[in-house]
Amino acid sequence: MNQPDPTGGPRRRDRLPGAASAITRTPFPKSQKIYVPGVIFPELRVPMRQISQSPTRGRSGLVENDPVVVYDTSGPFSDPNVELDVHRGIPRVRAPWINLRGDVEQQAAPGSRFGAARAADPALGHLRMATRHAPLRAKPGAVVTQLHYARQGIITPEMEFVAIRENQRAAAIREAVGRVQHPGQSFGAAIPREVTPAFVRDELARGRAILPNNINHPESEPMIIGRNFLVKINANIGNSAVTSSIEEEVEKLVWATRWGADTVMDLSTGPHIHETREWIVRNSPVPIGTVPIYQALEKVGGKAEDLTWELFADTLIEQCEQGVDYFTIHAGVLLRFIPLTADRLTGIVSRGGSIMARWCLAHHKENFLYTHWDDICDIMAAYDVAFSIGDGLRPGSLADANDAAQFAELKVQGELTKRAWAKGVQVMNEGPGHVPMHMIRENMEKQLEWCGEAPFYTLGPLTTDIAPGYDHITSGIGAAMIGWYGTAMLCYVTPKEHLGLPDKEDVRQGVVTYKLAAHAADLAKGHPGAQRRDDALSKARFEFRWEDQFALSLDPEKAKEFHDQTLPAEGAKVAHFCSMCGPKFCSMNITQEVRAEAERQAAEGMAAQSEAFAAQGGELYTPA
Amino acid sequence: MNQPDPTGGPRRRDRLPGAASAITRTPFPKSQKIYVPGVIFPELRVPMRQISQSPTRGRSGLVENDPVVVYDTSGPFSDPNVELDVHRGIPRVRAPWINLRGDVEQQAAPGSRFGAARAADPALGHLRMATRHAPLRAKPGAVVTQLHYARQGIITPEMEFVAIRENQRAAAIREAVGRVQHPGQSFGAAIPREVTPAFVRDELARGRAILPNNINHPESEPMIIGRNFLVKINANIGNSAVTSSIEEEVEKLVWATRWGADTVMDLSTGPHIHETREWIVRNSPVPIGTVPIYQALEKVGGKAEDLTWELFADTLIEQCEQGVDYFTIHAGVLLRFIPLTADRLTGIVSRGGSIMARWCLAHHKENFLYTHWDDICDIMAAYDVAFSIGDGLRPGSLADANDAAQFAELKVQGELTKRAWAKGVQVMNEGPGHVPMHMIRENMEKQLEWCGEAPFYTLGPLTTDIAPGYDHITSGIGAAMIGWYGTAMLCYVTPKEHLGLPDKEDVRQGVVTYKLAAHAADLAKGHPGAQRRDDALSKARFEFRWEDQFALSLDPEKAKEFHDQTLPAEGAKVAHFCSMCGPKFCSMNITQEVRAEAERQAAEGMAAQSEAFAAQGGELYTPA
Repeated sequence: MNQPDPTGGPRRRDRLPGAASAITRTPFPKSQKIYVPGVIFPELRVPMRQISQSPTRGRSGLVENDPVVVYDTSGPFSDPNVELDVHRGIPRVRAPWINLRGDVEQQAAPGSRFGAARAADPALGHLRMATRHAPLRAKPGAVVTQLHYARQGIITPEMEFVAIRENQRAAAIREAVGRVQHPGQSFGAAIPREVTPAFVRDELARGRAILPNNINHPESEPMIIGRNFLVKINANIGNSAVTSSIEEEVEKLVWATRWGADTVMDLSTGPHIHETREWIVRNSPVPIGTVPIYQALEKVGGKAEDLTWELFADTLIEQCEQGVDYFTIHAGVLLRFIPLTADRLTGIVSRGGSIMARWCLAHHKENFLYTHWDDICDIMAAYDVAFSIGDGLRPGSLADANDAAQFAELKVQGELTKRAWAKGVQVMNEGPGHVPMHMIRENMEKQLEWCGEAPFYTLGPLTTDIAPGYDHITSGIGAAMIGWYGTAMLCYVTPKEHLGLPDKEDVRQGVVTYKLAAHAADLAKGHPGAQRRDDALSKARFEFRWEDQFALSLDPEKAKEFHDQTLPAEGAKVAHFCSMCGPKFCSMNITQEVRAEAERQAAEGMAAQSEAFAAQGGELYTPA
Repeated sequence: MNQPDPTGGPRRRDRLPGAASAITRTPFPKSQKIYVPGVIFPELRVPMRQISQSPTRGRSGLVENDPVVVYDTSGPFSDPNVELDVHRGIPRVRAPWINLRGDVEQQAAPGSRFGAARAADPALGHLRMATRHAPLRAKPGAVVTQLHYARQGIITPEMEFVAIRENQRAAAIREAVGRVQHPGQSFGAAIPREVTPAFVRDELARGRAILPNNINHPESEPMIIGRNFLVKINANIGNSAVTSSIEEEVEKLVWATRWGADTVMDLSTGPHIHETREWIVRNSPVPIGTVPIYQALEKVGGKAEDLTWELFADTLIEQCEQGVDYFTIHAGVLLRFIPLTADRLTGIVSRGGSIMARWCLAHHKENFLYTHWDDICDIMAAYDVAFSIGDGLRPGSLADANDAAQFAELKVQGELTKRAWAKGVQVMNEGPGHVPMHMIRENMEKQLEWCGEAPFYTLGPLTTDIAPGYDHITSGIGAAMIGWYGTAMLCYVTPKEHLGLPDKEDVRQGVVTYKLAAHAADLAKGHPGAQRRDDALSKARFEFRWEDQFALSLDPEKAKEFHDQTLPAEGAKVAHFCSMCGPKFCSMNITQEVRAEAERQAAEGMAAQSEAFAAQGGELYTPA
């Protein structure tokens, strides 16, 4: 506990004070946080969750079950050995890697006028964190993006980190876990692994994947978004003008990553956007995305027509310096597309899209995000902030799905993608929205074709409009399908969609729903090893290892809570039935008796009789 | 209120006494129950729910919005004009049609020995209903199934009833509603309708659809299951040995149909299965399904090896006489298939399948349900009970999906289907289970090919095993997809699946999830008019008609409750925003302003400027 952090990042040892004690740090049942070191970079500590299992009680005694290692997005919050202080932020694990590359320099003062003003305002003292870090920026002329490094053939620590993290094949995981237990053993190149650091590099260089990691967010644990990797999910948090506080937003971040959010978008719109974001980024183990136009609009008092390029550029720099990892920018909403939305059932439903449409119409000028695209790229390249090119004209109802406005913008997203690549900036593209099942595939096909295979990042899509209160499900259906077709990241939808701001339980419902949709997509894509966890859970279920079943599930607390509603006694956790069917009608219980009987009969010469059956029977018979 | 019921069924006028007042009869908001008469059979009263809407506030004043008429499964319970007594059962609307056909006769005494014994047992008096009806049976030699009538070219009242009920096209609905308001007007043959009584008849005759309607369940409102009709959903209810009571089961039935269950399966396994079922059938406006082997097993004290054909046949007759509309029968679990399950991860997970496997192994004999198939068909043909041929070997985990055991049984289901058809019995086939997305389509294709296009009736399928507590969603994904591919009915899964017996809130969650999945499938199949409700809801949403949005949604109470959690004030129901984005960031609000601005500019000659843009612009431009 007292040895120095091998990653070189500072370790916070103070106990959580006052308000921050609301941060959830409950460990997962039967789980242990483990860290897998790298091979190229032995100092890497790639976090995983190892779930232990009880042995199987067979007729010939106990048989051990291997622990199951799963992808873990929860950062240090789920590691009871790490002491944290949310006022200081989590350990800055990437700081030494960034500094070692020698292509960045510390800024003496914020490059953003707004950021400098907020930093100097004594009235905001009570909202500031205990520690402050001088922002980094690329040295003049340098491009510091993972895309740039990958094109030069460089494998960065970030790349090896995600390669280890992505491996889901049983063999690779067992090896990796083995290394944790025996640190002396080396990870030879001969060991077969599906995801290698070189593969990560090549996918990044091709633009087919992004590794969103702002140099000013060294707290983030590297992760990759691309269709040849595990499907990722994003959770949105953020106060609106109506409710919620800074502390609640940090807890929502921790809460969302606990259940599996791979990235979090901070969509706050209140008066303290800047300060809220600082708390979120400093405490986030996952990449943070934002929609900078929201804050820009806040700065002009909500009047879209007062937005200017200069104000927007300063907002970008402000957020780059804070460490935001990707920006949604609605540069594809062109003036000439606005009339295409006139006959829509639901017009423009993207906030960013409607803001830019209003600006375009008010000035009768082309969208300044489009006309300043190259300038935006230059800013983002200096901090390695990735684009999430917004779909401001996405359909807000089935009636508007796949229409001229939507696809006109998608084509421009493709043009913008290629221009960003030319500047060395990482890119993904946002997608819809509301789309009936039979029209989903066309979205994926057009995006792949027009946007050069840049990762697709969709909101659902919702497959029907008639179930408000259940839109995590209407959209979870579409999300699973488009994930299977090739979408790299799914933006979650909570049960409160269209109705109100989600609370913690809504965030949990939304994240778990999207986690299962993403996993269903991984299975359908045949991601190597994805089925390990399903198989382990099903085996536990079949063997009535209830606690193992709970521990292996995406939401162990919910599974246990549901089970215990009707059978709360501890003895029920080893019972060979549940309240669904009761003891006499449990098929799995009967099956186990059937198997025992079959084995007994086999010993008594059933084999001979069965062969006779096969002779009458059919080609499907195979001897037991 | 005091006029005679035009359908000729008895009307119950007694107030709900004591315990039964727990039955939910709350009307839906802004909704009115309407009854559409027939053309061939003017006495038909096809129930629908008509949702009224507020007018749109445009710049040029108020514009009316047509009411929306939706499919309604809730029976008389949602009609405040019908007085009900659950002790006597709901009106017997089909009784006159059945009697008029002249092919049935009343039985002086129950044909089932068990049924007769229960009827004579004085100890069961407190569990009996206030009224009893002598069972009907086909006259000797007669076949009284809808399939039999259809093959003879007969259009029954049941067939016209479902034809009217299925129509979702706006024009047909408007006509139908118009007829309610002006009963004098006639429904001419020239009016275009997608679903005609003749089409219903032809689909039934072909075996591609079923109309499950036991002659002893005249309380049921006819409905049709087939892939050229709206996708249907089933909800399972039933106590297990561990919990729940008769009253709770009746309320669960009412509750499930309230949220949209098209059929209900009674899977009770307690000591009073017979009496519970009587209450359920007499109060059910939807077809009731059962798995008769459960009760048979109960009768032999849970010892599968003690089951006999004679006992099972008596159980079938008992349930035929009570009015069960379809039976799940696991006749495809053949002795020679059992060894195929030996290497499975989760063996046999169907209760019925495991019971029969145990019987087969114990006696080393072929499944008596298979060897007595023709006898079973003869019984069912005399009451018009439909088959739901069970999939006793369905996969219980992804690892076992689409394996040899599953498909061996499916092939036998096909053989049994054709044999049942030869006897004039209606048939559907049960399907899986646990199947990853990329393996779902194969299930549908094989079922269509091997089972002669008989309706497919699947349980989900679940697309991943790792989310107990969320299996309504893991399976809702698979259900929507397989519904799109052609499955006719989806058996719901509740959040408690694998964990315990569902309570009322679980039933609601399960039913609404499956209703939205079925609707998503209808949309993807291009069912005429299915999108009307989506469009109406989206229009209401875009126009901030909050109460209309709630009323049009599948679960109005949940939508309103979620909205009101953050904005409970009545004024918020007309506000142009919700707490999700707050007033300043509401895209739909901004869009409406954008449209107003565009109109203003158009008046000022924007058109000319826009054309200049188009010249530079692109082929996608269309003048506003």
